[in-house]
Amino acid sequence: MTVSIRQLQRRFVAIRENKAFEIFVISVIVLSALVIGARTYEIDSRLRRIFEVLDFSITLFFLTEIIIRMIAARTLKAFFSQGWNVFDFLIVTASLIPLEGSETAYLGRLLRIFRVLRLVSIIPELRILMNAFVRAIPRMGYVSLLMFIIFYIYGALGSIFFSNINPQLWDNISIAMLTLFRVATFEDWTDVMYETMSVYPLSWIYYLSFIFVVAFVFLNMMIGIVLETLQREHERFSRETGEGEAGEVHWIRERTEIMDQRLERLEKMLAEFGRQRT
Amino acid sequence: MTVSIRQLQRRFVAIRENKAFEIFVISVIVLSALVIGARTYEIDSRLRRIFEVLDFSITLFFLTEIIIRMIAARTLKAFFSQGWNVFDFLIVTASLIPLEGSETAYLGRLLRIFRVLRLVSIIPELRILMNAFVRAIPRMGYVSLLMFIIFYIYGALGSIFFSNINPQLWDNISIAMLTLFRVATFEDWTDVMYETMSVYPLSWIYYLSFIFVVAFVFLNMMIGIVLETLQREHERFSRETGEGEAGEVHWIRERTEIMDQRLERLEKMLAEFGRQRT
Amino acid sequence: MTVSIRQLQRRFVAIRENKAFEIFVISVIVLSALVIGARTYEIDSRLRRIFEVLDFSITLFFLTEIIIRMIAARTLKAFFSQGWNVFDFLIVTASLIPLEGSETAYLGRLLRIFRVLRLVSIIPELRILMNAFVRAIPRMGYVSLLMFIIFYIYGALGSIFFSNINPQLWDNISIAMLTLFRVATFEDWTDVMYETMSVYPLSWIYYLSFIFVVAFVFLNMMIGIVLETLQREHERFSRETGEGEAGEVHWIRERTEIMDQRLERLEKMLAEFGRQRT
Amino acid sequence: MTVSIRQLQRRFVAIRENKAFEIFVISVIVLSALVIGARTYEIDSRLRRIFEVLDFSITLFFLTEIIIRMIAARTLKAFFSQGWNVFDFLIVTASLIPLEGSETAYLGRLLRIFRVLRLVSIIPELRILMNAFVRAIPRMGYVSLLMFIIFYIYGALGSIFFSNINPQLWDNISIAMLTLFRVATFEDWTDVMYETMSVYPLSWIYYLSFIFVVAFVFLNMMIGIVLETLQREHERFSRETGEGEAGEVHWIRERTEIMDQRLERLEKMLAEFGRQRT
Repeated sequence: MTVSIRQLQRRFVAIRENKAFEIFVISVIVLSALVIGARTYEIDSRLRRIFEVLDFSITLFFLTEIIIRMIAARTLKAFFSQGWNVFDFLIVTASLIPLEGSETAYLGRLLRIFRVLRLVSIIPELRILMNAFVRAIPRMGYVSLLMFIIFYIYGALGSIFFSNINPQLWDNISIAMLTLFRVATFEDWTDVMYETMSVYPLSWIYYLSFIFVVAFVFLNMMIGIVLETLQREHERFSRETGEGEAGEVHWIRERTEIMDQRLERLEKMLAEFGRQRT
Repeated sequence: MTVSIRQLQRRFVAIRENKAFEIFVISVIVLSALVIGARTYEIDSRLRRIFEVLDFSITLFFLTEIIIRMIAARTLKAFFSQGWNVFDFLIVTASLIPLEGSETAYLGRLLRIFRVLRLVSIIPELRILMNAFVRAIPRMGYVSLLMFIIFYIYGALGSIFFSNINPQLWDNISIAMLTLFRVATFEDWTDVMYETMSVYPLSWIYYLSFIFVVAFVFLNMMIGIVLETLQREHERFSRETGEGEAGEVHWIRERTEIMDQRLERLEKMLAEFGRQRT
Repeated sequence: MTVSIRQLQRRFVAIRENKAFEIFVISVIVLSALVIGARTYEIDSRLRRIFEVLDFSITLFFLTEIIIRMIAARTLKAFFSQGWNVFDFLIVTASLIPLEGSETAYLGRLLRIFRVLRLVSIIPELRILMNAFVRAIPRMGYVSLLMFIIFYIYGALGSIFFSNINPQLWDNISIAMLTLFRVATFEDWTDVMYETMSVYPLSWIYYLSFIFVVAFVFLNMMIGIVLETLQREHERFSRETGEGEAGEVHWIRERTEIMDQRLERLEKMLAEFGRQRT
Repeated sequence: MTVSIRQLQRRFVAIRENKAFEIFVISVIVLSALVIGARTYEIDSRLRRIFEVLDFSITLFFLTEIIIRMIAARTLKAFFSQGWNVFDFLIVTASLIPLEGSETAYLGRLLRIFRVLRLVSIIPELRILMNAFVRAIPRMGYVSLLMFIIFYIYGALGSIFFSNINPQLWDNISIAMLTLFRVATFEDWTDVMYETMSVYPLSWIYYLSFIFVVAFVFLNMMIGIVLETLQREHERFSRETGEGEAGEVHWIRERTEIMDQRLERLEKMLAEFGRQRT
């Protein structure tokens, strides 16, 4: 019987990896998220009904697939030991709760969020993107800490010197840090600067140095993380397939090993000849 | 006769690849687009007339070239099976329709757009850029989907908590998502934030986390796509020409293959000697 | 006795490198920076007291560690000859000065900045980021100079042509340069442009060319510096560990050297045989 | 006598390449540009006088150096055949014209721009940056053309549909393109969008698609150009010095060539042995 379960599982994987099916699933989820979400628009209730049914069938399809995967995993513990399985199970079961009765309640609206997360659960490319995102967190943590220090230092200086000029923006360190975030996004930052420049004419140095430091650290963080993730994936992929530069280098390395062994054997044979001759 | 068609085609290609001719064509198309387009400016009608004539001659030149290419392709089916040929044919024939009589009509104004697209049809570098753009679409699609999920989740949360504060910005998910796009472009986003912070003082967490996540995903998307496209093209170009690092690695790979075969032959010869001797 | 000092030092390094300890230290410093810094919020004074004590214990721990490092270095001169030791010593001793009595004074508020800098002193990853930042300064210097020249040229042109239109924005070169920085950050720049376009209708060329040049130079600077730093670190790491493409290339280089020497010996041996035979 | 000229030239090059001298020259030029430029500030006239004298001495120093270079080049034609020599000559001679008498005139203010350009003339790193900038122009040209096409298409559509809503922003293609540039810099773009959305509720698609396309093409342009320039320079430098990955690959390539020739000789020798034996 286990064999038929495996066969069933393989058939479901085949359906899932079908490009047309994927596009159909994505369209239904995205459209139903928009159509059902748009309470206030006057949408033909029949269209709405169709989408609700389609949406529900997709949930049923993926529920079936999860159950088959569960049976294939034999024990529940083995199934739930993988993070993505827990994620899939939660998303799909939460999507089964009907929205209609609870349309105005908070719960019904929160359920909508869960339904759109089925996209991550279903499309492998989104899982890869999410994985890359999760892997980047530790490095992002340290750079966020550096950002916090920069904001704190400038915030402390700002609250010391500018709190008398405009308490709404600079009263204490927390408020000053929020004001600095506003400056970092260039949102009406010149208004903030002109205000303090009327008291301290050289305070433009404070703003300009802050913008330069933050832009540098932020870009460093973003570009650095993105590039490292990309390069690592690219090299790994290239080595595995043997294509591209890294793949060729790996091929050369292995072949060089073989050639060196051949040369060693040749040298031994010739040395043997030399000894026989004398 | 086919030979003379091929010769004619080659001559046209030679004219097209001439740098001075290319600069002339680009200037005429860009300037005539601006001059003819500027209805409201008082431009000397003679200057306008000159540009119309020049513009028309260029269209005629490329019409001739396309007809020659058509004849060279023998069957119309073979000619139209290539996407760029269809594109060229549509652009050039649409450019033949006179603009003057229909100046105020919608059609005349839409024709102007077609005329400027001749630049893409004519300049090979722009075709390469367009090709790169088209190739990047699938990957962009998945990241757009991820962006949609992020906007949807934040939009749902925003419409749940903030719709009572300002219905114009947060009434339903669609409107909330547009407001979030505004926040993502830093356009007067602090006004939006200060408004909700007066009710929920901690709502800055909502905005800041949203900005960080979107900036990360957006930059990831853009830089990732650009770099991958560039790197792939760079490596391919480098391998083909044999220049640069990737080209040298490819050269080494091929030469290593030859050396290894040589070594194998040497080993066999020496083994043969050894056997003869004993 | 020196041995026991070394052992003690090693034990402290072991504690510092413990991940749980690091997270605890980061949380205490960040939270106490926020809690103690938030004068104006009504925070339970007991919570505040707890953070003050925790914060003080961490300072004591790192003071002990620095003293042990000092003793291990034997002479004070050897200890203070390293930049990071001086930095650590200053930060930790300055953190010992109590904040309470001087809460309202400037000094007390400046001390707060020093306390948060302990994060840099403690976390090795932040030191690496700071080192990368310091190494990037020379190159940043030259590009800043180029930026200054661009701003100066546009500022001079702006103060020549626009000072009569709006003296507040264009009166002299210094003020014009600040206005240009505002334009470079896109902060209400169209207001500035529309004002001058009412007198000089073609002045949009001035703004658009400025934005393009500055964006190009700025992005060049940022991306260039970040990438170079990353690539250099990546290659160095890869070569040292022998992993990745650069590591494999290095391995191939060394092995090629050995193979070439082998081949030279083989050639000599065969030439010897040839001579013996004749 | 030619020898002494060469010696003199070498001595001047040695002075120029001295780091302390470079920093002194940069400081004097930047400070005198700011001090002399600040007409409106009350600056001690003695300080001003000092900077004028220092600034003039530097100009004299570089005038002397240029004259020596001229003599060393033998003919004026040989000297002026190099672009940078023409640039240096123009900048330095134009800097000799006194500013004082013509303080209020346009000419005097334009001279100031020339004086600051001496920085480019003097510092080799800035020349490298300028060279990179000039080399990037052709590629930038094609992407600018692509940008023009995108702006033209959206501008034409905008002027067709929105000119009745707000003629000030959308009256003709030229004005619509300027409005679109404003949208591309996110400068109050939501005001523009909300205005057209009151007539065409779906016009947000127009703005969002425009922003995505422009951001993609712009980033593609910038990052692509910067990276290609960097990579080419990096590889060239690495190959020349033999350091880094590209240098090692180049070394391996050359050594592989030698090894292959060795193997060919070995094979010939062994084949010769074989023939002698039979």
